[in-house]
Amino acid sequence: MEKQKISSAVINRLPAYLRLFTELEERGVAHVSSNEISDLMGTTASQVRQDFSNFGGFGRQGYGYDVKFLCQQMQQILGLDKTYNMIIVGGGKIGQALANYQGYDALGFFIKAVFDKEVWHVRVPSHIDVFPTEDMKDFVAKNKIDIAVLCTPKDVALETAKQIADAGIKAIWNFASQEIKIDGVLVENVHLNESLFLLTYKMQNQD
Amino acid sequence: MEKQKISSAVINRLPAYLRLFTELEERGVAHVSSNEISDLMGTTASQVRQDFSNFGGFGRQGYGYDVKFLCQQMQQILGLDKTYNMIIVGGGKIGQALANYQGYDALGFFIKAVFDKEVWHVRVPSHIDVFPTEDMKDFVAKNKIDIAVLCTPKDVALETAKQIADAGIKAIWNFASQEIKIDGVLVENVHLNESLFLLTYKMQNQD
Repeated sequence: MEKQKISSAVINRLPAYLRLFTELEERGVAHVSSNEISDLMGTTASQVRQDFSNFGGFGRQGYGYDVKFLCQQMQQILGLDKTYNMIIVGGGKIGQALANYQGYDALGFFIKAVFDKEVWHVRVPSHIDVFPTEDMKDFVAKNKIDIAVLCTPKDVALETAKQIADAGIKAIWNFASQEIKIDGVLVENVHLNESLFLLTYKMQNQD
Repeated sequence: MEKQKISSAVINRLPAYLRLFTELEERGVAHVSSNEISDLMGTTASQVRQDFSNFGGFGRQGYGYDVKFLCQQMQQILGLDKTYNMIIVGGGKIGQALANYQGYDALGFFIKAVFDKEVWHVRVPSHIDVFPTEDMKDFVAKNKIDIAVLCTPKDVALETAKQIADAGIKAIWNFASQEIKIDGVLVENVHLNESLFLLTYKMQNQD
């Protein structure tokens, strides 16, 4: 499983680093120091340098890190220099919201189809096909699909995840509030409410 | 701003601790050691103890921490022992998905109304009222609203956030992919795609 032994705490910080580097690049910042990064991330400069050392250090110079290079490197580390074909499984409100969101193509994630038990309820852009869930296996056999976005209700999530695995998909982005563990399938859970709880934390501690 | 100087790295971990403690409680686990917690969190036992020391240490005994007590304490720290009234501003797919999600009441978050420019497009449960955005200020003056959930398209997010602040709401849960900074208003951003990027990271590094 592990090429390099990078702790999950470090891995979990990578998307936040990418977000920061992208913001800096968009603002036209050319170089950034580990002190500036740590300020913006709410951590310490030594932590930043330690995190970066897992990836070869990103070539810090006297004037700091090259922001463009940081962006590029972090995208590559996260696998965002590639493209991915996705299907959405579960065409309820969340599944529809994701299918209707225009931003995934630009990120290299292509939504190829939506699957639902009741296809007539599902409204998505016309270039995305909607099929009954039982057709998923056939579809995946004919189309290279990298990621299934699991958007079913909680009570059918596990059973649906097994169908996804059975169809040969190896990665699930899980929006169903249901723990999924299947051998040989990577699962990442979306914890939507965590930022809401950070908000209520800050509401208690603001004065 | 700061009662106790708790680093934002620690604060950001609190919702994950709550999730873990809740899972343990649901599984009927009575006691847990800092080693077990650190294993499940992907961090170190000394980090766990250091994190906990910010909140008085949670009374570790010889047989570990009391899981029920940890849950209770973490809920209180995050302000989840209180209830909050929310409005959803922007009744598109994401706003509707949140309004239709049945889980917020049980968490103590009550959705009082949805605001949108085009109320006739918005389908939400019948107990939630839908009003035109220009009525927000009046509504907030008559109803105690703690949190606005910002779900507009990116291009009107900043302007809408200013209306929210102008209506007197002090906390925004931000689903619009637009950085919002307003004096005196707490903002937490939802970074939906970060878990997707963790998934693609793991897809690169699984073998």
